[in-house]
Amino acid sequence: MKLSGRQEEIIKLVKEGQPITSEALAEKLGVTRAALRADLAILTMIGILDAKPKVGYIYAGNPTDTAILDNISKVLVGDIMSKPITVNKNTMVYDAIVFLFLNDVGTLFVENNGILIGAVSRKDFLKIAIGGTDIYKVPVGVIMTRMPNLVCAYAEESAYSVAKKIIEHEIDSVPIVEKINEKCEGKEQFKIVGKISKTNITKLFVKLGEST
Amino acid sequence: MKLSGRQEEIIKLVKEGQPITSEALAEKLGVTRAALRADLAILTMIGILDAKPKVGYIYAGNPTDTAILDNISKVLVGDIMSKPITVNKNTMVYDAIVFLFLNDVGTLFVENNGILIGAVSRKDFLKIAIGGTDIYKVPVGVIMTRMPNLVCAYAEESAYSVAKKIIEHEIDSVPIVEKINEKCEGKEQFKIVGKISKTNITKLFVKLGEST
Repeated sequence: MKLSGRQEEIIKLVKEGQPITSEALAEKLGVTRAALRADLAILTMIGILDAKPKVGYIYAGNPTDTAILDNISKVLVGDIMSKPITVNKNTMVYDAIVFLFLNDVGTLFVENNGILIGAVSRKDFLKIAIGGTDIYKVPVGVIMTRMPNLVCAYAEESAYSVAKKIIEHEIDSVPIVEKINEKCEGKEQFKIVGKISKTNITKLFVKLGEST
Repeated sequence: MKLSGRQEEIIKLVKEGQPITSEALAEKLGVTRAALRADLAILTMIGILDAKPKVGYIYAGNPTDTAILDNISKVLVGDIMSKPITVNKNTMVYDAIVFLFLNDVGTLFVENNGILIGAVSRKDFLKIAIGGTDIYKVPVGVIMTRMPNLVCAYAEESAYSVAKKIIEHEIDSVPIVEKINEKCEGKEQFKIVGKISKTNITKLFVKLGEST
């Protein structure tokens, strides 16, 4: 693992003025505290810094082996994905919302004859519910985000790559799909085999912390 | 790091029948595939197993140093938390939902004179929106989850401990609070200083994977 320029700078500042708070570090570096979050978390995890509650950071100088971080990208989506909850495109919005609550999920995936055609999130439903649409008479097929506009992933991808898609596209979950041989009007078609949400990634993080 | 009994069993089965899929492992162990998820992810990350897409698991036998996992619990919430979005308890539900969309967050925290008194999530709002309540005339103070029923955390806690609270209580986010000296009717009072959601934890996971 190679430290970034900013991480090297942080280490230098901590050595000079320890203990030092993240606010003080942010000020000295001329960045927001938010911008430092990841660097401080990583330097703490790899044992270079130590975070003392209410005191600040001190130099621990005890770097651990980081080979395990390389392996993060070897964990495959197929082995941590959950069962997707699907509805037919003709389901009325109200019934779909009730189904969402019954299954306690954040997103419903929409199918037509076994083909993934769209998705509707809790956020989409809330927008529709306060927007004056008759939720008893409009089917989910009308309000869903349609393929090919859904961000999808394959079971063979890494959990890391899917977590990255979730953050970059600011979405809650990603359908895990398999390509179907038949095309429709020249377009690729997919069936849904799973889903990965921020919950799956958070659970993985907790399991990592628990395993020691 | 000490492997669990099940992890040892998995390693034995992989050595005997590699490559072996997670479905086959689940069947041999008499558990669901879901139950194996975390174990397979951890054994892959620590370099004992290797996951081959579409083939299955093989024995890699190359365990990495896991000291970094002990350090997960040293990352403090105060250094990865986000800014909380708050509303006054007298804000009407409709206005609060619009405010939720404007800020693009999943939960609003409710304050009264600087004291945290409750929270309302996208899920709560959706339930109210389809339930026949007049969202233009009911204030959030009436529909919120009230203190002390909110799961809270302190900035000095570890990110790991808060991620665990999120999973165990099946919630989307946790307000990060500070105790206020004055009690109210003999009860502790808190102000809100931040929040941690599944998004923060997913971001941390992505940063860890990126850092190599």
